Amino acid sequence: MKITSVNNNLVKETAKLLQKKYRKDLFLLEGAKCIEEAVNSGLEIVYLFVQEGTDQFSNFENKIETTEAVLSKISSTETPPKAVAVARKPKREWTENYKKVVLLENIKDAGNLGTILRTASAFNIDAVVLYGDTVDLYNPKCVRSAVGNLWKIPVFEINDFEVIKCRFSAFERIATLPKSHNTVWLKDYVAAERNLIMFGSEAKGLSSELKDFATKNITIEMSEKVESLNLSISVGIILYKLSQITL
Amino acid sequence: MKITSVNNNLVKETAKLLQKKYRKDLFLLEGAKCIEEAVNSGLEIVYLFVQEGTDQFSNFENKIETTEAVLSKISSTETPPKAVAVARKPKREWTENYKKVVLLENIKDAGNLGTILRTASAFNIDAVVLYGDTVDLYNPKCVRSAVGNLWKIPVFEINDFEVIKCRFSAFERIATLPKSHNTVWLKDYVAAERNLIMFGSEAKGLSSELKDFATKNITIEMSEKVESLNLSISVGIILYKLSQITL
Repeated sequence: MKITSVNNNLVKETAKLLQKKYRKDLFLLEGAKCIEEAVNSGLEIVYLFVQEGTDQFSNFENKIETTEAVLSKISSTETPPKAVAVARKPKREWTENYKKVVLLENIKDAGNLGTILRTASAFNIDAVVLYGDTVDLYNPKCVRSAVGNLWKIPVFEINDFEVIKCRFSAFERIATLPKSHNTVWLKDYVAAERNLIMFGSEAKGLSSELKDFATKNITIEMSEKVESLNLSISVGIILYKLSQITL
Repeated sequence: MKITSVNNNLVKETAKLLQKKYRKDLFLLEGAKCIEEAVNSGLEIVYLFVQEGTDQFSNFENKIETTEAVLSKISSTETPPKAVAVARKPKREWTENYKKVVLLENIKDAGNLGTILRTASAFNIDAVVLYGDTVDLYNPKCVRSAVGNLWKIPVFEINDFEVIKCRFSAFERIATLPKSHNTVWLKDYVAAERNLIMFGSEAKGLSSELKDFATKNITIEMSEKVESLNLSISVGIILYKLSQITL
């Protein structure tokens, strides 16, 4: 199949997926590497636009050859990629077996979220919970910065604090906070059997609701001349430490 | 003093500092918080533009009241800050006392560099070396993402490998690499008396020149399902570990 007009209906429908409100079941994968990783992870590719003349994805049934102008219309980067795919969001069921869960509250930066998902996958976190007013997981920037790790880890959006309370009642609930009388140093942190590691946005930190919900407060040992670490750096250090003590 | 015209000469000269080629001795600080941190660190503020009507920086001799249009012209963000300062680059002398040095090779992303400087300050690194084709340290984006930490740590640009070889001949030189027969796990890493921690760009990693120069190769323990970590996450984890073993 071949489509060369930017006014083609399928092109228009695909371009809509750049906007959150249209990403109900489908989302965009930009670039060959990202698409390959998704295919290898078993993600369903509904259809695929490839620049004419490139011989990639030759085995694909639903492949559409197209022009650079079309690829530019259906992608979010300045330089359009040679391939853009439309994929179906994976469905995930919550299970009681999860032992290491990361909760992110009000994370607005898509790049940050993608980096955190990649880090959580690397350190064998079982699931990630997005709580509050969070950037859309299927935002193209987030898909890109997760570098293929978006579908390697189950992600759940939960907006109701009652659900959080119920689901994590049997977990040790960890907040990362500046040093005070009721925080322990990260080096002295001992993991429980089930751990919920909670992080707020870089600007505002955790809400008081979640701070009150925490059963343990941790502080990363660092110089007093620096006020705080970048959010994803904190996440990286704490998840590495957790992976070391729960091997 | 008050300047309201965007065509004023001082405004034009200041706006030039948005471009690297004009940042010889001076650079821009955008936003009140950033300026305050610089002042507290003893940085020389040559002059300062403040939006008329704001009562901040009332003690400043070289304060210039101005309009939003002028602030917009001399700043790099979409929404102009209420204050923009012109500061003098701090001069640093290399000393033989440095025991923990981070080397960054070919780092192109200003946000990444700023985050790494902030992290290096937090974990008491003595100095940072920029080697190869690196983004300008005084790029406004880098100044912003370092969140006031740009002048808390000495940064040196070195472009000659002979200088690197000579200066770090007595250091343990550490490369972070994927697992192979000659890497040690981070958990088993024992610091030497003097340590040079080297990182390459996220896209290309360390050059073979620097890989050959390394005396120890380290691998961060992580899941095989993830290819690699984000560069600044790797830096954060390794510098945290180093801070723990060299306290």
